[in-house]
Amino acid sequence: MESTIKYINANKDKFLNELIELLKIPSVSADPAFKNDVLKTAEFIAEQLKKNGADNVEVCPTAGYPIVYGEKIIDENLPTVLVYGHYDVQPADPLELWDSPAFEPVIKKTEIHPEGAIFARGACDDKGQMYMHLKAFEAMMESNELPCNVKFMIEGEEEVGSENLGHFIKANKEKLAADVILVSDTGILANDVPSITTGLRGLSYVEVEVTGPNRDLHSGLYGGCVANPINILAEMIASLTDENNHITIPGFYDNVEELSAEERAEMAKAPFSEEDYKKALAIDAVHGEAGYSTPERGSIRPTLDVNGIWGGYTGEGAKTVIASKAFAKISMRLVPNQSPEEITEKFQKHFESIAPDSVKVLVKPHHGGEPAVTPIDSIGYQAASMAMETSFGIKPIPVRSGGSIPIVSMFEKVLGLKTVLMGFGLNSDAIHSPNEHYGLFNYYKGIETIPYFYKNFTELSK
Amino acid sequence: MESTIKYINANKDKFLNELIELLKIPSVSADPAFKNDVLKTAEFIAEQLKKNGADNVEVCPTAGYPIVYGEKIIDENLPTVLVYGHYDVQPADPLELWDSPAFEPVIKKTEIHPEGAIFARGACDDKGQMYMHLKAFEAMMESNELPCNVKFMIEGEEEVGSENLGHFIKANKEKLAADVILVSDTGILANDVPSITTGLRGLSYVEVEVTGPNRDLHSGLYGGCVANPINILAEMIASLTDENNHITIPGFYDNVEELSAEERAEMAKAPFSEEDYKKALAIDAVHGEAGYSTPERGSIRPTLDVNGIWGGYTGEGAKTVIASKAFAKISMRLVPNQSPEEITEKFQKHFESIAPDSVKVLVKPHHGGEPAVTPIDSIGYQAASMAMETSFGIKPIPVRSGGSIPIVSMFEKVLGLKTVLMGFGLNSDAIHSPNEHYGLFNYYKGIETIPYFYKNFTELSK
Repeated sequence: MESTIKYINANKDKFLNELIELLKIPSVSADPAFKNDVLKTAEFIAEQLKKNGADNVEVCPTAGYPIVYGEKIIDENLPTVLVYGHYDVQPADPLELWDSPAFEPVIKKTEIHPEGAIFARGACDDKGQMYMHLKAFEAMMESNELPCNVKFMIEGEEEVGSENLGHFIKANKEKLAADVILVSDTGILANDVPSITTGLRGLSYVEVEVTGPNRDLHSGLYGGCVANPINILAEMIASLTDENNHITIPGFYDNVEELSAEERAEMAKAPFSEEDYKKALAIDAVHGEAGYSTPERGSIRPTLDVNGIWGGYTGEGAKTVIASKAFAKISMRLVPNQSPEEITEKFQKHFESIAPDSVKVLVKPHHGGEPAVTPIDSIGYQAASMAMETSFGIKPIPVRSGGSIPIVSMFEKVLGLKTVLMGFGLNSDAIHSPNEHYGLFNYYKGIETIPYFYKNFTELSK
Repeated sequence: MESTIKYINANKDKFLNELIELLKIPSVSADPAFKNDVLKTAEFIAEQLKKNGADNVEVCPTAGYPIVYGEKIIDENLPTVLVYGHYDVQPADPLELWDSPAFEPVIKKTEIHPEGAIFARGACDDKGQMYMHLKAFEAMMESNELPCNVKFMIEGEEEVGSENLGHFIKANKEKLAADVILVSDTGILANDVPSITTGLRGLSYVEVEVTGPNRDLHSGLYGGCVANPINILAEMIASLTDENNHITIPGFYDNVEELSAEERAEMAKAPFSEEDYKKALAIDAVHGEAGYSTPERGSIRPTLDVNGIWGGYTGEGAKTVIASKAFAKISMRLVPNQSPEEITEKFQKHFESIAPDSVKVLVKPHHGGEPAVTPIDSIGYQAASMAMETSFGIKPIPVRSGGSIPIVSMFEKVLGLKTVLMGFGLNSDAIHSPNEHYGLFNYYKGIETIPYFYKNFTELSK
């Protein structure tokens, strides 16, 4: 991979400028207002794949946003790596909390990134990490060192549940035939502590609506006489967890995978400072399920979080009103053996059952995702581990992540392929938050590591 | 009052058209966007007072919105009625729930108002009821039957707490010297069941802010590890009431006036159908403090209602975020002997004390108001009762209302005057709600009743 690495080092500025152009397009898939930008982004990716030498590049239409496909088959007898990534991003709001506009990328040095980081929505999740794969591919093509076949599948609906990706892969099993799936949409523990994500939490996401009286009421004339949907919603939400922060939904923990003392001891070896953690978030205390450490609460245990709540008068000043309706978006992170269908159904049944007669409740399921685990004895994991050891000079640690990449379990079900989660982000990158950023070190390190994965995977497959 | 009544009957259309013009101006005092409209409304009232023959009409500046003053002194030896009303209105949102635009008044017949009602924000609260006094004054002036002196004080900040009215009356005690204060900002039980409000609940209104982590976080990476300010706020709100819907704030009930069995029996005589009440609000069950009837819960008992709540992602689709902050507007209705200062302080102390270490809490007091009671043996009450008996042909029932008119107790403190609450609205008028309206019957009945109040009060004062 010598000349590949040479090419990468010679083209760092070019790679960065291309990413900056990509980040300028506000591809927010959750908000229809950005539809044209999301479509523009798909075209951008397709153009790059062609330029870099991919064949059969297509922008494949779906019921929602298109999936960009491209491939390079050099020899049917060699293994094939299927690269997955997404070109859509999270909404940027609250906009007022960004130090620089979300879609006007800027490079700034930070304590953790002395050589600079690029600040923009999607810088890390997932435009930056996805684009590393295109640039690694370009480098291997330009230096004639591509050691195996590669296929790219870059979608535009990951942040809204990848609803149409499932139909796409079911309908294109042959086209997508491969030996492993490689994804960079996760992180490492630190720039000097490389790690590979071996477990992901699943997701159940619902929206609830509580309706009291048929219209907004004067809180003086009606206060005390009718159920206030906001107060009721607050009581219902509060009742979903007990004093130990256990979730009270009947059967919620039925299928939860309980780790052995050994496994938990193994996990506890990963470096973690609760003091630094609290300082970074400016909190005086952590908060979570009794009996588990903070890293455990964030990875091997399921959760219930309200992601949004609204109702009544939220403008300036004081309005003495009893709202007719109150709403909340609630998501639950799931661990191995919990399924989103099972949990969503249990939530719905329970939430409806605890509503008092004085209100009506509506539970609307959003997207969900299965939890997933990657075995560390698989060829894919080994190839990634060796690649990182080469590029970082340190053997990476296998870790369970708290996030969800729902499509990982779908890939296994539909394509029968294991996914390797070789990501290069940091928890401090503020993905899904204002001032999201991605270290230049991490961007270039990713581009440099990927070719070694191809090489290792090809050799280990012999 | 014969020719006065004649004049009223001859000018009904004129009176209605003037009110329509007044209602077209969106004088929303809570929202700075409407500043010019609020000021325009003050000018409108001043112009009308001049036209109707008031002297010394002024638009008196305050630190906020101006107070319109006008007077007619016919004889220093005759009693003086001070008329109070407000020209500002509640915000109109949620706009999408209005059948016709909030500031484009339309007349429609309803089941309760077969002769038609005028639909617009402020139609009843308080532009419609306030304007009845200007038209009654016009009628008495035009027919030379004004029996006593009158002063008008119409403010523009009632819906945001009348903060500047207090300074104004303290600074203008002589100018405002009178024998009674007459206000139409309340209601009657039904168009065939006239009533007069003898008690008002007070108000304590606060805004709370709960802060968790210093930025929005990815709910996958951090879910389960940190306090989610929305979940915490929900738990804190839920804990403010117990299973009997008693308020749990320590000392909250210390000074609550407990009514005797006799008084409660007397109250229970007012016609009330829980079935009709539930049907009108489309609810299957009422909800309130154990041990009290719905009318009692709405009048003689204090309450705690969340008037607004917001935090996290409330847009379209699903965003997996843990918000940094969550907010709520919370108001408490108070009964005689509870003071807003006392209750606001007890709320603040308690709310701060129940916050877990994992969050920071900020409690911002908004405006408050003292509860008030009008003795039914006072000349003012008698004059109003007789006036209604004349115009309705039925003796009105004295009732306790659940609403608050904070300035009533302030008038008593600063000016030493009792207030007579002779209002003509109905609970079904949807004040503070979409589709607020005011019956034409009620508007005209009010204009017709007011002159009799002047007459009765003048004679009873001899």
